[in-house]
Formats: sequence, C-alpha cells, structure tokens
Amino acid sequence: MFYLIIDILGTIAFAISGVLVAMEKKLDVFGVLIIAFVTAVGGGTLRDLLIGIRPVGWLTAPIHIVIIIVTVFLAILFVKQLKYFRKSLFLFDTIGIGLYTMVGIEKGLLAELSPIMCIALGTITACFGGVTRDILCNEIPVIFRKEVYATICIVGGLSYFLIIQLPINNTIAHSAAIVIIIALRIIAVRFKVSLPNIYRD
Amino acid sequence: MFYLIIDILGTIAFAISGVLVAMEKKLDVFGVLIIAFVTAVGGGTLRDLLIGIRPVGWLTAPIHIVIIIVTVFLAILFVKQLKYFRKSLFLFDTIGIGLYTMVGIEKGLLAELSPIMCIALGTITACFGGVTRDILCNEIPVIFRKEVYATICIVGGLSYFLIIQLPINNTIAHSAAIVIIIALRIIAVRFKVSLPNIYRD
Amino acid sequence: MFYLIIDILGTIAFAISGVLVAMEKKLDVFGVLIIAFVTAVGGGTLRDLLIGIRPVGWLTAPIHIVIIIVTVFLAILFVKQLKYFRKSLFLFDTIGIGLYTMVGIEKGLLAELSPIMCIALGTITACFGGVTRDILCNEIPVIFRKEVYATICIVGGLSYFLIIQLPINNTIAHSAAIVIIIALRIIAVRFKVSLPNIYRD
Repeated sequence: MFYLIIDILGTIAFAISGVLVAMEKKLDVFGVLIIAFVTAVGGGTLRDLLIGIRPVGWLTAPIHIVIIIVTVFLAILFVKQLKYFRKSLFLFDTIGIGLYTMVGIEKGLLAELSPIMCIALGTITACFGGVTRDILCNEIPVIFRKEVYATICIVGGLSYFLIIQLPINNTIAHSAAIVIIIALRIIAVRFKVSLPNIYRD
Repeated sequence: MFYLIIDILGTIAFAISGVLVAMEKKLDVFGVLIIAFVTAVGGGTLRDLLIGIRPVGWLTAPIHIVIIIVTVFLAILFVKQLKYFRKSLFLFDTIGIGLYTMVGIEKGLLAELSPIMCIALGTITACFGGVTRDILCNEIPVIFRKEVYATICIVGGLSYFLIIQLPINNTIAHSAAIVIIIALRIIAVRFKVSLPNIYRD
Repeated sequence: MFYLIIDILGTIAFAISGVLVAMEKKLDVFGVLIIAFVTAVGGGTLRDLLIGIRPVGWLTAPIHIVIIIVTVFLAILFVKQLKYFRKSLFLFDTIGIGLYTMVGIEKGLLAELSPIMCIALGTITACFGGVTRDILCNEIPVIFRKEVYATICIVGGLSYFLIIQLPINNTIAHSAAIVIIIALRIIAVRFKVSLPNIYRD
C-alpha cells in the first residue's frame, strides 16, 4: 500500500517532467501525452525487455496509463500553476527515483542476476524514461550532461548490497537504500554537486 | 489473400515514406534502405517486443524484406516521378495504417490484454515505424507535432471495441474499424483537421 | 580463447569510439561511460531482443562491463595520447566488426532463421551499437551517411553462406568470412571507397 502510493507519486512526477519538456518543444497534445507516458514507463519497459519479462509491466497494469492520462490533462490545463508545486514535484521525483532503483534491483535479483547487473537495471529503471524523453524531443539526454542522479542511483544500489551484508532485515536494507538515494539527491541539488569535470578547457 | 495485398501495399507506402525522409537528409543508399526498413517494420517490431512475441515478426517472414528492398531501389531510381503517385501513396499509407492498427489490436487480444492496452498496441503498430524513422533522421517525430493520425488510430481502435458490443460478426467489426480509420484520415487531411492547440501564444 | 581475445579487443575499440564521440559532445563522465557501454553492447542487445534470447547477453556476462569501465577511465585519462593508437584502434575495430558479424549470424542460425535474416542480425550486431551511440549524441548515425562498413558486413555475411556451400569445414568458412570483412574494410578505408552516390546535385 505504502509502495503503491510512492509509485503513483513517482509516476505523476515523471509524467509531469515529460509534459514540461514536451511543451517546451511545442508538441501537440498527443505528443505531450506520449512523451509523458514514455518518461514514466520507459525505464521499467527497457528493464523488462532486457531481463525478458513479458509482456512488459505496463501492458498488464492499466493503473499507470490512467494516472498518466489524468496527470497530462491536469498538467496542460494548469501549466502556469505548476511552478508553485516545484518543490513537491522535486520531492516526488526524488522519491520515485529511489523507489524505481530498488524495484529494478529486485527484479534483477528475482532473475538471479549478479549485483553489478542488478545495480545497472535499477539505474536503467530510474533513468531511462528521462533518456527516452530527451531523445524523442531531439535533445542529448540531460543525465549525460549535468544531472548527477544516475550516479546517485548507482551509489544507492551499491549501498543496498553493502547493507544486506550486515545481519539485518531485507526490508530495512531496502528502505535504507531508498533513503540514501533521496538524501544524496537532495544534498546534490542543494549544494549543486556535479560530477568531476573531465575536460581541461 | 485480401489482407496480404493490403499488407504489401501498406509496406510499400511506409517504405517510400522512409525513402523520402532519408533522401531529404542526403543519406547514402544503405542509410536510405535502413530508414525505409525501419519505417515499414518498426511498429510491428516494438509491438512484438512489448508483448513478448519472439522472434519478432519480420525475422520469420522474408517477404517484407524483399518488398522493401525492391521498393527502395525503384523509389531511388524514380524519385522524381514519385510525385505523380502522391495520391495513390497517401491511399496505400492510409489503408496500411488502418490495417496495422487492427493487426496490433488482434495481437493484443491474443495475448489476453485489456482493450486499452490493445488500442495502445494497435497505435504503436501503425505509428512507431514513423517515429523511429524521424528519430534516426534526427527530427522530432512528425506525429508528435502536427499529424493527427495517431489520434485516428486510437479512435478507430475505440470504435472497434464499441462495435463488437453489438450482436455482429467479428470480421465485420474488424473491417468497420479499418474503414472508420481510413475515412477519418481522409477527412482529417482534406479539411486540415488538427488537434486542439494547447498553447496560448 | 582466441575468440575471447578478439572479443575483448573489439569491445575495447568500440568503447573507445564511444568515448571519443561522447567527449566531443562534452558529456559528463557518466554520459561518456553510458555511451561507451551502449556502443560496445548495443548491437548484441538489439540482436538478442529481436531473436528473443533472454536475458540479453551482457546481463549474464559481467566481463564486458568490467572491460568497458576500465577502458573508459583509461581513455578519459589518456585521451590526448589516443591518437598515437589510431591504427591499432582501427584494426581492433575492424576485427571486432568481423567477429561480431559472424557471432550475429551464428545466433541467427541457432534460432533456425533463414540466411537473409542471419545476415541482417550479423549486420545489426556489428553496427547497431554505433547507431545508438550517434542517436544518443543527437547525430544522424554515421553509417547511414558515409561509412561503408555496414555494407561490408552484409557482403561478408553473404560470402559465409556461399562458402559453406563448398565441401569445407564450418570453422574455416567462419574464419574466411571474418577475414573477408577485415580485408574489405581495410581496402575500403585505404582507397576511400564509398557507396554509389544516389543524388544528382
């Protein structure tokens, strides 16, 4: 139940980020809807395809489609007001990233993949929706340029695999990793942390 | 037999639309061939991947590859003459969209998915080839900007699920939905119908 | 053992080509890593998805991820020195293309697909990583514009299916096809061979 609520809030935040990018590109309403949809479900879709889960998750769970459609129509109507929710949206988005990373890791574990692959799948789940959004809008994905949140997903995933070495409950390790991801992201944004610059000029 | 002919005409129309976009970008002959191929089979490929049909359709049906190769070479040779066939090509394309939408819906039903997911799969089958074509040519997909035909696929799919509520034969409902899609597209193009503008400025 | 070495050299060459394109776009270190990874494993991933091999290859073979991570960090550190290895890298890349084409063909044969589809899968294995790299970097894929190497993969694949008609060992046919691909690529680059121009102006 708790997870369902986080999942819904994350879906809303991801869909709205899709709406905002799509509207900046002046896409029509169908385009905005598709970009929002892809942003919200793209990461899980690629993860399911790579692991071989079929059909991919969203095809059998209509709840996401319904939430995304409602979100898109509300976001388009109240686009001017969205700025007042910027902080809430950032929070939903951050919680969503934490949750989706751990969902990806869990699906990897279920498929008996190694920790490094599980972390890769967690990061894909959390990040690939945004990558597809940017590709469809003809931009180089923002997480390849300045956003650090993919790196935070990786660090969060690593900390999960470290924590479960300790003699503690899996649910706690799971929640701890989500909290670590959320905390790191808030710190990274507040203190404008970026990856080390690899260019001299 | 009738379906096979429609499928072939649709494949030809889709491949030619790929050739035209690719030649505008001055791609070489291999690039033109790939763009044509992707335009023609991309939608069905994504649909099969999402549902989990394996291998994807075109890998076991060489007829499409042969038709596409022949079409591409003829289209490149007679590219100046293509404008005389503009109306026929539009018709083939439109019939193809109708057919592919219903093929996608059928595959969704076979996989026991809900009507909303079947409609999504039908729309993906009809539209995603063009999306991939535009992405590979570094353009924002045209159906996200001005073409209404994705919306028409959705309306056509909805009407199929409404019609089968009536006490009539499935084949008739099927054909009726294809006719509705074709009619709507012709009307949309003739009267320059577009989606409602969501931007104030 | 011999194959493993070629595979590793090919992976290194592909990853470095990803690093170079990504650094030209001034991506951050995470972006460079992902582009390198996608360039190296993208072709095999699409092949596995299309055939329906699950999970896709790299999820169960961590060696590639490790090689790519090491390669990326070394390539970033010594990017100025990479030009001295240009010839070696070209050679590794070319050998990699030959090998990957044949790996794709073999996987197609294992899935009992027809020769034309096996050749398509071989070409996808060798070329699609570079296509994804270019798409993620917001460029029209270079193999659609000027590189002839996709065509060379096709010719190499065709020659394999011709050679196995002869009364000779499969391993020899296999190696011969790889040698043909390598030789054609070296000839094509040395003599600046390009596909016939299909534009009059």
